Amino acid sequence: MPDSHSVGIVAPQTAVFDAPIQLASGAVLPRFELVYETYGTLNADASNAILICHALSGHHHVAGRHQPDDKAAGWWDNMIGPGKPIDTDRFFVIGVNNLGGCHGSTGPASISPDTGTPYGSRFPVLLVADWVHTQAMLADRLGIRQFAAIIGGSLGGMQALRWSITHPERVRHALVIASAPKLTAQNIAFNDVARQAIITDPDFHGGDFYGFDTVPRRGLRLARMLGHITYLSDDGMGEKFGRMLRSGEYKFGYDVEFEIESYLRYQGDKFSDYFDANTYLLMTKALDYFDPARHYGGDLAEAMRQAQARFLVVSFTTDWRFAPDRSREIVKALLDAKKDVSYAEIESAHGHDAFLMEDAPYHALMRGYLARVADEVNPLPQEARA
Amino acid sequence: MPDSHSVGIVAPQTAVFDAPIQLASGAVLPRFELVYETYGTLNADASNAILICHALSGHHHVAGRHQPDDKAAGWWDNMIGPGKPIDTDRFFVIGVNNLGGCHGSTGPASISPDTGTPYGSRFPVLLVADWVHTQAMLADRLGIRQFAAIIGGSLGGMQALRWSITHPERVRHALVIASAPKLTAQNIAFNDVARQAIITDPDFHGGDFYGFDTVPRRGLRLARMLGHITYLSDDGMGEKFGRMLRSGEYKFGYDVEFEIESYLRYQGDKFSDYFDANTYLLMTKALDYFDPARHYGGDLAEAMRQAQARFLVVSFTTDWRFAPDRSREIVKALLDAKKDVSYAEIESAHGHDAFLMEDAPYHALMRGYLARVADEVNPLPQEARA
Repeated sequence: MPDSHSVGIVAPQTAVFDAPIQLASGAVLPRFELVYETYGTLNADASNAILICHALSGHHHVAGRHQPDDKAAGWWDNMIGPGKPIDTDRFFVIGVNNLGGCHGSTGPASISPDTGTPYGSRFPVLLVADWVHTQAMLADRLGIRQFAAIIGGSLGGMQALRWSITHPERVRHALVIASAPKLTAQNIAFNDVARQAIITDPDFHGGDFYGFDTVPRRGLRLARMLGHITYLSDDGMGEKFGRMLRSGEYKFGYDVEFEIESYLRYQGDKFSDYFDANTYLLMTKALDYFDPARHYGGDLAEAMRQAQARFLVVSFTTDWRFAPDRSREIVKALLDAKKDVSYAEIESAHGHDAFLMEDAPYHALMRGYLARVADEVNPLPQEARA
Repeated sequence: MPDSHSVGIVAPQTAVFDAPIQLASGAVLPRFELVYETYGTLNADASNAILICHALSGHHHVAGRHQPDDKAAGWWDNMIGPGKPIDTDRFFVIGVNNLGGCHGSTGPASISPDTGTPYGSRFPVLLVADWVHTQAMLADRLGIRQFAAIIGGSLGGMQALRWSITHPERVRHALVIASAPKLTAQNIAFNDVARQAIITDPDFHGGDFYGFDTVPRRGLRLARMLGHITYLSDDGMGEKFGRMLRSGEYKFGYDVEFEIESYLRYQGDKFSDYFDANTYLLMTKALDYFDPARHYGGDLAEAMRQAQARFLVVSFTTDWRFAPDRSREIVKALLDAKKDVSYAEIESAHGHDAFLMEDAPYHALMRGYLARVADEVNPLPQEARA
């Protein structure tokens, strides 16, 4: 039975940018491509576009299916579709794989036109600002001057924040979900352990593993296992796995014994099959570097002063990766900068992952906020409102 | 200038047990040795002995120095010595390297008498119960029937708990510090990532790296880096390292940039130089398995009912590895079992590591509690009390 709230079968598109682009680090990429998907219809004045910014391991395939028999839909399919909180009957929604990604956009595994071989270790380190820059180039290409909303969770929320600072006039609403204004020392520490797992894997070959017919699978697996611990809450993990043993008894060995071990190793194995190690490094580094207050003497309110967007900031009670306190820092800075901001702290047992989950109060909040945005940019015909 | 509160120069001793010992797993070790140190003097009725149980990476060298020019003293030197909270003027203190350790006691790197080669992968998995069993054999050897106190932090606290259950009549006081009645799914998950880092290091050779003239340095380093994150508090790490950059600027590469990276990599490198990978695996597995309530239908109070010791349970506010809630579980079980228990939650920014730190309220608590214990077992002469 077809899901009437699904965007249905979707196909990715590719935007090619053939001119050299200078990155925030000073490095230059001779050309790049961005792969993206769109759902819904851009209205006449191109005012109803929503950009979805992805997090560490996300991509452009946000909703719908590529093939009717795809097991899984896009990664935020519960949020996006006809009649869903991000309503594709009213919005034109864009998902894009960020530059440096490994799902079709130009990244470390892409062929460098200078050498005819994969970039590998020569692919430049990126900042969140570079993603915003290239996303803006894509928006230009699509004829979108101002987004009705830019929405992102986690690292995606950082992109929404950066957009609102760098392109104030191009962001009507910024929805910053389960995010933070910058990483703490503990956040950076977890990222560095993950990076060291990858970099010290003998199969990493200094980032140029493509030429060795191998991938640093061990390192990626460890990075993902560790990441997963920080995505889940202690309580949520306890409820789901507790101290459950796979066989009911201690086996006195190092194979899987506890269910949580089985889950993490499975997640790690799966991830290491498809994710690019250099992309993982890039993404964590962009997280570490993100700190919009840095050029404002550490004053986030000062950084946000130029923003023109209205903001919705959302956090989740058991998220310890980017705890509610971190969202409140953003809210405080926005209030200090006299910006229009709404804040919601959602009760959830799902830790950081909660931003991806279907949760009634969370979805109701998103639905309510975005219905108002839709009324601003793409009002329903008179008869529909009756 | 000699420190009048130091136990001074100390020398380890070795106790050899030449008969086969059956372990909790059913495995048998043909013989074993325990290396230990003692400080202070055993009194006439052997009633003033204190056993110090070590945690994951600890050992028998708890106080004093082996050589006058040793840079560092034993790992709990701030707590143990003449006039210190664990006062060697009144107590006979024993530090022992646990079976399976890598500091002199029989462990995976020891030569198996059956093969003439290191045990490696053939060294049996151990439970906390095995440590208690072998520590009790050492106590017999030293003529100690009942300990005035058994004291341990973290995994050491679990040994103190296990002692009080298995040998109720041999423990007068059990001091259980920064510990937990069993690991959570999250605790097990962190341990499993550390183990997988070691086991998947190509230099691990299935645990038999001794024969390959190598050690799984990469894996051990990652395990230690990860461990360290869980020993420190988010706030404490923030205060000490924050987002401080080594060079003051972003370098857009993967070398050390943030001070926290430098600290963790240094700790990891140092650890991988001296710690045995198989011992690390054993220790984390003993942590995972520890669950004294398991054979009592999950009822910790029922497990504790047979204990005769009096208890001091101590936790630290910012410890998220074994949070105060976990200590309160122990306290509640002891109260339900109608045991004599004191509980203190110490304000500290140092996370789990706080149990090793010199902190005035913590040390005052330990001093006060143990002075009472000393009065019970080794009262001062009349004139000294005047």
